Amino acid sequence: MIIPLKDLAAHIGAELRGDPEHTVESCSTLELAHDGQLSFIYNSTYIKALKTTKAGVVILSEPLADECPVNALVVENPYLSYAKAATLIHQKSKQVGDIHATAIIGDKSYIAKDCVIGPNVVVSKNVSLQSGCTVSAGCFIDDNVSMGKNVTLMANVTIGVGTHIGDNVTIHPGAVIGSDGFGYAPLGDHKGWQKVPQIGHVVIGNNVEIGANTTVDCGTLGNTIIGNGVKIDNQVMIAHNVKIGDHSAIAGCAGIAGSTTIGKHCTLAGGVGLVGHISIADGVHVTGMTMVTHSIKQAGVYSSGTPFQTNRDWLKNAVRFKQLDKLTKKINQLIKSQKDD
Amino acid sequence: MIIPLKDLAAHIGAELRGDPEHTVESCSTLELAHDGQLSFIYNSTYIKALKTTKAGVVILSEPLADECPVNALVVENPYLSYAKAATLIHQKSKQVGDIHATAIIGDKSYIAKDCVIGPNVVVSKNVSLQSGCTVSAGCFIDDNVSMGKNVTLMANVTIGVGTHIGDNVTIHPGAVIGSDGFGYAPLGDHKGWQKVPQIGHVVIGNNVEIGANTTVDCGTLGNTIIGNGVKIDNQVMIAHNVKIGDHSAIAGCAGIAGSTTIGKHCTLAGGVGLVGHISIADGVHVTGMTMVTHSIKQAGVYSSGTPFQTNRDWLKNAVRFKQLDKLTKKINQLIKSQKDD
Amino acid sequence: MIIPLKDLAAHIGAELRGDPEHTVESCSTLELAHDGQLSFIYNSTYIKALKTTKAGVVILSEPLADECPVNALVVENPYLSYAKAATLIHQKSKQVGDIHATAIIGDKSYIAKDCVIGPNVVVSKNVSLQSGCTVSAGCFIDDNVSMGKNVTLMANVTIGVGTHIGDNVTIHPGAVIGSDGFGYAPLGDHKGWQKVPQIGHVVIGNNVEIGANTTVDCGTLGNTIIGNGVKIDNQVMIAHNVKIGDHSAIAGCAGIAGSTTIGKHCTLAGGVGLVGHISIADGVHVTGMTMVTHSIKQAGVYSSGTPFQTNRDWLKNAVRFKQLDKLTKKINQLIKSQKDD
Repeated sequence: MIIPLKDLAAHIGAELRGDPEHTVESCSTLELAHDGQLSFIYNSTYIKALKTTKAGVVILSEPLADECPVNALVVENPYLSYAKAATLIHQKSKQVGDIHATAIIGDKSYIAKDCVIGPNVVVSKNVSLQSGCTVSAGCFIDDNVSMGKNVTLMANVTIGVGTHIGDNVTIHPGAVIGSDGFGYAPLGDHKGWQKVPQIGHVVIGNNVEIGANTTVDCGTLGNTIIGNGVKIDNQVMIAHNVKIGDHSAIAGCAGIAGSTTIGKHCTLAGGVGLVGHISIADGVHVTGMTMVTHSIKQAGVYSSGTPFQTNRDWLKNAVRFKQLDKLTKKINQLIKSQKDD
Repeated sequence: MIIPLKDLAAHIGAELRGDPEHTVESCSTLELAHDGQLSFIYNSTYIKALKTTKAGVVILSEPLADECPVNALVVENPYLSYAKAATLIHQKSKQVGDIHATAIIGDKSYIAKDCVIGPNVVVSKNVSLQSGCTVSAGCFIDDNVSMGKNVTLMANVTIGVGTHIGDNVTIHPGAVIGSDGFGYAPLGDHKGWQKVPQIGHVVIGNNVEIGANTTVDCGTLGNTIIGNGVKIDNQVMIAHNVKIGDHSAIAGCAGIAGSTTIGKHCTLAGGVGLVGHISIADGVHVTGMTMVTHSIKQAGVYSSGTPFQTNRDWLKNAVRFKQLDKLTKKINQLIKSQKDD
Repeated sequence: MIIPLKDLAAHIGAELRGDPEHTVESCSTLELAHDGQLSFIYNSTYIKALKTTKAGVVILSEPLADECPVNALVVENPYLSYAKAATLIHQKSKQVGDIHATAIIGDKSYIAKDCVIGPNVVVSKNVSLQSGCTVSAGCFIDDNVSMGKNVTLMANVTIGVGTHIGDNVTIHPGAVIGSDGFGYAPLGDHKGWQKVPQIGHVVIGNNVEIGANTTVDCGTLGNTIIGNGVKIDNQVMIAHNVKIGDHSAIAGCAGIAGSTTIGKHCTLAGGVGLVGHISIADGVHVTGMTMVTHSIKQAGVYSSGTPFQTNRDWLKNAVRFKQLDKLTKKINQLIKSQKDD
């Protein structure tokens, strides 16, 4: 979308320093941007690139404005303002109202008139899609699924029976929503496992984004719940009956075991694991690959793991870890014996 | 399925205390269940909910029976009995014998008459599906695959060349069975890698369940083998030539490297990693996110990792880990010097 | 493919000891191979199997040649030579030039004449596939994708907008290339997140292999780059703007956060995690499940984590880890007080 800087300034609430009629039509980095492109800088690390940029306009904050050799949009929070500007510039011109000839729509399913349904999409029975939804090639939507407005399913997504999805939700390719939870009762006597039917559903709020090849299991009884504004990255595993509070964000490869509840405004970094049946307070941030084995009652930042080293050093230290309790006892003994002296 | 309590009691071997003609048709929690629903309680944590439940019947054990205000099914193991009862009540009424018009069936492939093949399914050549199989939308089954009775493939599953699947197996959406193993020979002189052809197959026993987006690689030579009754959760990675013993269960995000053998009746919790070419005895249980770097010869419970803390405390301790060997030596020196005194 | 030993010897540069006219047509293990099969041995562990093998020919190195009871192909590097020989023997006889009737090819897309496009494949607009490409059932290729020669997409692969793929690349089932990166700007005041449009692409070099259900995100601005000869296993997560140097290999379940750069000839073992915005030198090898939290400037082997133990022992040691800093201080105090004596 071609847009004059005066309109861009109004859209993001920026002070424009430069030519209000100049237009941009895409975004790029400070180094690569040309005259028709928008760029941004949010900290002084890249100031050298700023000084030589050929961008049509740069979004930046006041302290850097004087260093900008081209048009500038001065804002308080350049990263956020860039996100808003780039969203406007790169908005997709949507087709409207097209159901591909190869799409299969089941009995009693309702597709609002302006939805776009791609090739080889299969929509089962009693499904409803409200206005503005887009379903890309190869998606499968099972019985009794309901979607709000402006839901986008990218290619090859699977939505299980009875899933409810709110408005403005995007689900990336290969994600599976509403698969069976992992629930079995031991049969005893080494006879194996009896499956516990997984008859609950997944309920997803508004403004949620779910990454590629992520899986969200349905509830065993009751539902798995993803709150409003939750952002989930690729290859995240969310087990049955998990509840995620509004606006929490979960990075790639994290795994959350069954019936665990996460508060609002939490962040889990990549590869974090949460055991089942625990509760995480609002405002908790967990650093990468941390193993969370019990509930967290207070907001804050939490971590586990050991720092990496050369394998040679690590081997020496790791083997000592196996004796850490004995070591501690030795020291306590030593201290005690000193005091006794 | 609507079922009178007397039939339910007979099916699960329970003592019925209440009205044998009362019927239930679905399951719910103690809190939410109504008169037409079954619920259960398996420990006294939920006794308050039991006392006020409006369920049609509750499955419970003798000690809690007196507290039950509604019909009761008294059993020894309420969780297992619930699993069996819920399976009966929620059994799906299956369509039979339907091959969707858009399904593609390759030459010399046999599909038993009562199988259900969904839209856009592609079955290649020389495939055989025995009685009662269901293949959902978008699945791809490559050449020379054989499936036993009552195999269910959920949507968008991929089954690679030559895979053999036993009876009563369920594979959840997005799973990939029989993909190439990760095998390369170094070319030397920094020239990169020569692929080792992955010409073995995957052999899956009876009563196996495999989770959404899980991957099971074929063998390099010989086969990758999943034993009878094995249960595998979502996003598990099983490499080439792995062998998993009967009735073992593997939770989400676990990864098992090539040629490793797991015994019978083992459990791996979420995020566990096993290196390649090791052997795990029968009856081994590994806790979440544990890294298993060598064979385990004895049944038991095994763990690794460090407990999580506030990031502030963790940083202090983690940095000390890097000096743990030196610390241990200091202490041993100290003790020695004391003894020498 | 049936091939006489004299041709096999020439192909891999081996010295043949035995019958040059003898033919083999497939590969197997020393134990299972019959007269028409090739096998190999690369270390003396399996010498017992060598002595009794019934293979048609065995690839081995000089020191083991005297123990071989059947035809032998003597080479310097048996594993590499086996890989080359097996690749020749098991090469697939390719169909040529077949676009399945159910495939959908968008406007302005070019498919070279000898490509094979499977059932239910969807190719969008402005896509180009050079000579010898194979696209299996259910793949989706979005707008403006370009592929070089001999690219193979296995079933149900998704390729996002603008992805560029080089020659001789294989992508395994369920992989997603070019999905959106996980980029959001905080809105402040607990209002949640503003999406940052992900408008870069993925650029994949020549001779790359990408595993089943792996995801590679597109760049935010600029591209995510996978170098020549890179091998990526299953369920690997590669975030936006990551760069991977030539011939590096990444094993299953590894995760690489945004904007991280990996050098050439590196290996990451299974489950390794790299934080974002760091740089890994050429020739770095990271052992399984290691957490890499800052840049690595020198080639070498790196590790983190703790060794596994029985849960009973681990619990005792793990709790001590939480006091490791205090313990260290106690010891330093003790040593100081001794010196002061």
